[in-house]
This record gives sequence, C-alpha cells and structure tokens, in this order.
Amino acid sequence: MTEVMIPRLCVIGVGLIGGSLARALKRSGAVGEVVGSGRCENNLRKALELGVVDRYETRLAAAVTGADVVLVAVPLGAIGAIFQSIAAALPDQAVLTDVGSSKGSVIADAIQAFGHLPPSFVPGHPIAGTERSGVEASFAELFQKRRVILTPLLETDPAAHNLIRTMWQATGAEVVDMGVRHHDEVLAATSHLPHMLAYALVDTLARMDDRAEIFRYAAGGFRDFTRIASSDPQMWHDICLANREALLAVLASFSADLARLSDAIRRADSQPILELFQRAKRARDNLYHLE
Amino acid sequence: MTEVMIPRLCVIGVGLIGGSLARALKRSGAVGEVVGSGRCENNLRKALELGVVDRYETRLAAAVTGADVVLVAVPLGAIGAIFQSIAAALPDQAVLTDVGSSKGSVIADAIQAFGHLPPSFVPGHPIAGTERSGVEASFAELFQKRRVILTPLLETDPAAHNLIRTMWQATGAEVVDMGVRHHDEVLAATSHLPHMLAYALVDTLARMDDRAEIFRYAAGGFRDFTRIASSDPQMWHDICLANREALLAVLASFSADLARLSDAIRRADSQPILELFQRAKRARDNLYHLE
Repeated sequence: MTEVMIPRLCVIGVGLIGGSLARALKRSGAVGEVVGSGRCENNLRKALELGVVDRYETRLAAAVTGADVVLVAVPLGAIGAIFQSIAAALPDQAVLTDVGSSKGSVIADAIQAFGHLPPSFVPGHPIAGTERSGVEASFAELFQKRRVILTPLLETDPAAHNLIRTMWQATGAEVVDMGVRHHDEVLAATSHLPHMLAYALVDTLARMDDRAEIFRYAAGGFRDFTRIASSDPQMWHDICLANREALLAVLASFSADLARLSDAIRRADSQPILELFQRAKRARDNLYHLE
Repeated sequence: MTEVMIPRLCVIGVGLIGGSLARALKRSGAVGEVVGSGRCENNLRKALELGVVDRYETRLAAAVTGADVVLVAVPLGAIGAIFQSIAAALPDQAVLTDVGSSKGSVIADAIQAFGHLPPSFVPGHPIAGTERSGVEASFAELFQKRRVILTPLLETDPAAHNLIRTMWQATGAEVVDMGVRHHDEVLAATSHLPHMLAYALVDTLARMDDRAEIFRYAAGGFRDFTRIASSDPQMWHDICLANREALLAVLASFSADLARLSDAIRRADSQPILELFQRAKRARDNLYHLE
C-alpha cells in the first residue's frame, strides 16, 4: 500500500479555490481526510453535503489540530486574522500554505501573526478561477493545465516547499517558483489591472443616463470584455488593497498610455493610433496563436 | 413563382460583413445575382471561388450598373471615396446602404459626395462581427439573432428604408431604427471604448520590460478581456476618427472614473472601491442573467 501524500488536509475557506483543491486531491487519492473550516457554518454544511470535506470545525484551533497541511483560501483581507487565530494551535509538523493573489501582503501578514516567517509556510497562488464563487462552483478539474506560482523565501523549509509543489502537481497543475515582488508585478499587470478596467467600464456605462438603451446594444465583444466584472467584489476589493503598490504603478502606466491615445484621436493623428493598434494586435495574436 | 426581393445586389467591399450578408441572402433566396467590387482583385477572386459573389467588377461604375441594392461595406475611412466614385454611375432606382460603425460621419460623406442626402440612401449598422476579418471569415449565420440599427433621416424614401429593413430581416437579424447621434453615442460606449481599452491594455503590457514573462502568466480572464484587441487595426483606426466626438466624450468620462478608483486605492478607502465593484457586478449580472 502506498502512503497517502497528505493524511489530513485542513481547508480554511471552502469556496471555489479551497473546494476545488479538496475535490482534486480526493479524486487523485493524494489526501486522506479533509477538514473544512470557515466563517459561515451554512457554507461548511453545504461543503459536507457535497462531499468536498469529510467533516468541519467552526473553531479554527480545532480545525488545524492534527493537520499535515493547512490551506488558507479566504479573501486576502481576511488572511491576517486567520493567521493570528491559528498561530498558537498550528501543529509543529503542519505545512501552511495559502492561495492569495498578492504575495507580499500575505507574507507581511504571516510575519505579523507569527512574529517571524515560519519555515513551514509556503506562499502560493493558483492562476485559475472563474467569475463564479462559492463551494457550489468548485470542481476537481479547475487546476488542470493551469499554472500555480509558489513564492518560497530563504527561510522556507525545502521539505515543506516540496510537499506543496507535489500537492499542486497532483491536481494537474504546472507549478513554478517566482520571486515575491515579481509575482506581484506580473499579476498586477495581467490580472488585477484588467479587473479594474472591466469594473470601471461597466460602472461608467451603468451610470450614464441612457444605460438601459446602452446595454441593450452591447454585442458579443462586450460580453467577453466585461465577463470579469461579474467577479466577487469583496475579493477584488481585498486584492486592490493588498497589491496596492504594484497595481497603482501599472494603473499609472496604463492611464498615461490611454491619455496619449485620446490625444492622438483628438488631433486626428493617424500614425500613433494605427501603430498602437498594430502593436497590440501583434502581441495578442502571438500570445494566442493557437486560438 | 415569388419575386426575388433583390434581383441584383452589388457588394462593395467583400469582407467579413459584406461576404456574410451575401451568403445569408443567397441562402434565404432573397437575392438574385451578387456582384462584388473592391480594391483588391485577389480578394474578389477568392470571393468568386468561395461562391460568395456570382461575378465581380474591379471598376465601381460597372459594378453598380443595374443594381437594385448597393451595399458599401468598406472601412469607414474609405466610404467617402467610394461614394464619390459611384455618385455619377448609381442607377436612379438603386437603394444605397452601408454598414459603418459610425453613422454621423457616413452621412456627412454622403452629403459631400452627392451634394445632398440621397433619398435612396439608408444608413445601417449590423451589431455583429468577430475579431477576424476578410471574406474567408464570412459565414451566412453571422447576423442571426443579432441587431441591425438603421438610422433613416427625414429625407429617406420610406420604400428604400423598408427594402433595407426587409433585407436584414432575411438574414435572421432584428432590425431597429435609431437617431444618428444616439447611435453614435451608444456605440462609442458599448463598442468603441472597450476596443480602445483592450488595445491600450495589451500595448501597455507589451511595452513593459518583462513582457514575455508577463504574457506567460495571463489567465483565462485575460484571454477573454483582450480578444477584441485582435481586431483589424485599420478598421478601428477609422472608427476612432469617424466617431471621434462621441468616443472622446465617453473616454473622458471613463478616465475620470478610473482616476477616482485609483485615488481610492491609493488612500486605501474601502467604501468607494467596494461600491463601484458591487454596482458593476450588479449591472453586468443583470445584463447577462441567462449566462
């Protein structure tokens, strides 16, 4: 009989990401028991009914007892409080990891809660998700062929790092390591900024006088373009603030580019407009050349 | 035997839109002969091979001879020159229509070319398309269940208006009438602005130092969000300039909203951020509640 990779997994925050990881690990046989925990008992009961967790504990200290891996999958703004609550109860042998979209803020939260960076803490971020949320939206295939970024630090225990890498690989994901600051800059550009633009665009239109009329004539492109504006507002609020510095930098850079484009349109100056559109089309076509 | 709705249709610009209209009308039996014309003979030959047109004429005057409907489906920046070239040759009985994404500019082009607004001219705009272009991308179903906006004027002959409405209905489209200025404002908001944002975002990222790295970590949301940045640069350059006034107004309004969001993020002021995201999510979820 082969040994189970993670005899007991504790998932704090059994939503789309936490729930999908539990489902994927159960299906691959990489996990023994899954213990759920979180703020909302209704949600935990639903997770139990759906078979996503084997049992749940509403008290965090009870939830982490005897766990081999503790996964924190709550919105970024709540991670600090979770770390504070589990700091005393976390078993010595347990490996701690998270799925937050911003890594600098989570590492600061950990140092604050534990008084130092625990060697057993492996910061992680699966680049996967949908605009839906909650345990009902979770599914075992969510991470297949998706990337998971880990941002281990000098303090990180190599065995802990290795366990979390192997855990994500068992879901079908490709795992890569990255520096913390680099992660935060890359994600600000490719994920956080697009969400800000989609939310701001829909809100600009929703506040116009003839909004009913305007939305009636939105075509297919608009539907795709604004899909991410249906994402969870609280989660994205937290991401904005947690990754504030990198996000503001890329927002400023985008705003300057957009202002230059506006000026060129105002002056009816064809060349810079055409060049910008051509560069962008080339970059995107190269990116998705198989589409 | 029932009469054919349009015994001879002349399509100037046999690309995605012109080609798809020809295919749809042929399939529904609404058209007798389709005569293609345009700048590029290679493209016209391809259209003939694909059966999209029955014959082609490289000279515009020859192409419009004997036509019952002349459809101009070239990029907005070329419409004025086409009108000039066909003005003398256009048969008295022919109904003229176009598919430009901006209507004020096309109407100004018509007045310039004909010396007045011809009663047989029915400005039109099908709200359909893909990020692909060219006659190879055309297909008969493109307009099914899509909206086509007509912007007839006081001068417009009701019989001409009626023929163009019936023509689009034969493709499976829903046809609505709208005022010219209103059309241009609505399209600036729902289509032209999103394209500017998608192009500008991809270009901002493509110009960053670690662009290869950045694009590598783009997730599914990014792919959807930037799909429209793969659209034809020349066509969108023309739209920007043709609908400049309405586009600049909505661009200014969006930029102000984005600047307010940036400020709130900088100040870590949760409430306006959360409220904006919630309003946007509500508006988009209402729009696509069946998704």
